[in-house]
Amino acid sequence: MIINNSFCEAKGASLRNFNEDILMDSINGALALREHIEQIIDMIYDDDFDGIWFMGIGGTWASAMQAEVHVRGRSRLPIYCENAAEFLTTGNRKFTENSVAIISSVSGSTREILDLCDRIHEIGGKVFSFVDTPDSPLTKRDKSDYLIVYPKNEQLKFFMAADYLMYRNGEFDDYERFYENLENSLAEALAETEELTDPWAYRYAEKQAAFHEARPDMPHYFVGCGNQWGAVYSLGMCYWEEQFWIRCRTVQAGEFFHGMLEIIDRQTPVTLFMGEDEQRPLAERVADFLPRICENYAVIDTREFPLTGIRPEYRGRISHLVMRAVNNRIEAYMEMFLRHPMEIRRYYGRMKY
Amino acid sequence: MIINNSFCEAKGASLRNFNEDILMDSINGALALREHIEQIIDMIYDDDFDGIWFMGIGGTWASAMQAEVHVRGRSRLPIYCENAAEFLTTGNRKFTENSVAIISSVSGSTREILDLCDRIHEIGGKVFSFVDTPDSPLTKRDKSDYLIVYPKNEQLKFFMAADYLMYRNGEFDDYERFYENLENSLAEALAETEELTDPWAYRYAEKQAAFHEARPDMPHYFVGCGNQWGAVYSLGMCYWEEQFWIRCRTVQAGEFFHGMLEIIDRQTPVTLFMGEDEQRPLAERVADFLPRICENYAVIDTREFPLTGIRPEYRGRISHLVMRAVNNRIEAYMEMFLRHPMEIRRYYGRMKY
Repeated sequence: MIINNSFCEAKGASLRNFNEDILMDSINGALALREHIEQIIDMIYDDDFDGIWFMGIGGTWASAMQAEVHVRGRSRLPIYCENAAEFLTTGNRKFTENSVAIISSVSGSTREILDLCDRIHEIGGKVFSFVDTPDSPLTKRDKSDYLIVYPKNEQLKFFMAADYLMYRNGEFDDYERFYENLENSLAEALAETEELTDPWAYRYAEKQAAFHEARPDMPHYFVGCGNQWGAVYSLGMCYWEEQFWIRCRTVQAGEFFHGMLEIIDRQTPVTLFMGEDEQRPLAERVADFLPRICENYAVIDTREFPLTGIRPEYRGRISHLVMRAVNNRIEAYMEMFLRHPMEIRRYYGRMKY
Repeated sequence: MIINNSFCEAKGASLRNFNEDILMDSINGALALREHIEQIIDMIYDDDFDGIWFMGIGGTWASAMQAEVHVRGRSRLPIYCENAAEFLTTGNRKFTENSVAIISSVSGSTREILDLCDRIHEIGGKVFSFVDTPDSPLTKRDKSDYLIVYPKNEQLKFFMAADYLMYRNGEFDDYERFYENLENSLAEALAETEELTDPWAYRYAEKQAAFHEARPDMPHYFVGCGNQWGAVYSLGMCYWEEQFWIRCRTVQAGEFFHGMLEIIDRQTPVTLFMGEDEQRPLAERVADFLPRICENYAVIDTREFPLTGIRPEYRGRISHLVMRAVNNRIEAYMEMFLRHPMEIRRYYGRMKY
């Protein structure tokens, strides 16, 4: 993280809103869903499917994009992603009675997602749902053909489904070894990441909040790619815009050089997320260019974290989870410095639209 | 266009940078490529392809997205879109030696697009290129297996290829009738649109330029969907950011309600593009909501244009071209009011990166 280049202490940093036990239980509980996910995917895989579609809207659309890009370079399986609102209007003629949608919902009551299930059932396809909220509408038999109820860890759940699909298709020999590694070390590695990044996140948030005070109209620019792109998309829209009311512009690192760069000047606030997956070179190109034209940038590079216990060859596969851990810390302090509780909304839940 | 609700005159509006003859020749020339496009698509279609991929980067990626969404609800053909930078890093295992990429380039020398051709040829796939610039690197035999050299009209060229693919696949019975209608009336309908929208565009640009002067950090929000989404993406990045140096945030209308709405307040500048394709309801939902929370918005609705000669059932298929005509007028006056010539760049072509 170029903003400070070290994990030295910051006065005031205190691991705000961090409970290591809860975090680790949550991650390990998600990993423990594996057997159940495998049973469901076995049923789908053995059922002669013609397409598997990660679908979502807003934050879950972001996760769907992450799952799809994870699979894209690794598998010949007909795995796609699709935005729920677009599916409900444009539709997709490649989605048939032999197709399966994999979806996720925190509330289990998102309007478009419920409509999506009905549309899929009209076509004759099937729905595999991950739902956070027990007994919500999405958990009912008329909506979900396959169901797992467990809170949080949306990306992890989607990736577990995708990884087992690839394993069944002979495209992920390492599958067992990889998940053993995660079961042994992921929760601790992510908790460690939050602890290590906490002082830096405190200072970063302090700086962003002060800048926002001085120039409230200015959007924050987030750049990312690969399995980070969905994370960046969701970070800008679902966190900074929705929960902090700070303007944002997100861009895929590969697209950065095709127009958007012209709007970046010395004081434009830019945060670049660099992961360790195969799209890293696209982010590196931005990292090389940015300091020449901008002084108000931060580069968050997953490579700087030890991720103790995680085998080096698997680091890229969890870059998006590392980034979420860093953002957990940033958000805790943004909320504090902005004095803007993350749960307040101007419009959502306040009015009908 | 709610900003004025009529096509009344504005003092100073003068059809700046508009030449009806050149515009009409350009469009009719593109439509006259049809026979050549059909010959190429016939070769591809008869050659047992397993996938056809509209690919691009920046503005051409936007056009690729427009072509894909146009096909998505209409065809079972394996037609996809793909970002060139992502293909060069992540790759796509579904792209094989029997796959074909359809690409477009103005310069014929975009770095990622040339690399893309090489990568596709390594795989054994084929490239069908539309190139604006004769004798550019992309026109060479080692890059393009099928080639059409003709300037401008990128969307039209992509849609002609997509439409004929669907026709060959028995999914567009109306094909001949539709293109006859375009050949007889499209150029005139688009010229008419530019003429009708000119006074409004003058006032819109005057207002945006004044607002930008007063609040230069504030991004302009562009909302669109369906075959407009690519247009909106490109408008924000390739025009307002790159050519006017005005900050932008673009959002798919269906995603607007999943986070981004919270950042819109009374004075936030928002322009909503409403087309007449199947995703129109997503834009209508935004149009209904926006006036309740924002006074600084404009709705540009293709329905308000007569499009003389175009059969009503085909209007939705050309909504993105109508929007480009409107934006031509807006850009002519933005350039004038901002005193910012569209050809200047801070970084592109000025430094290496």
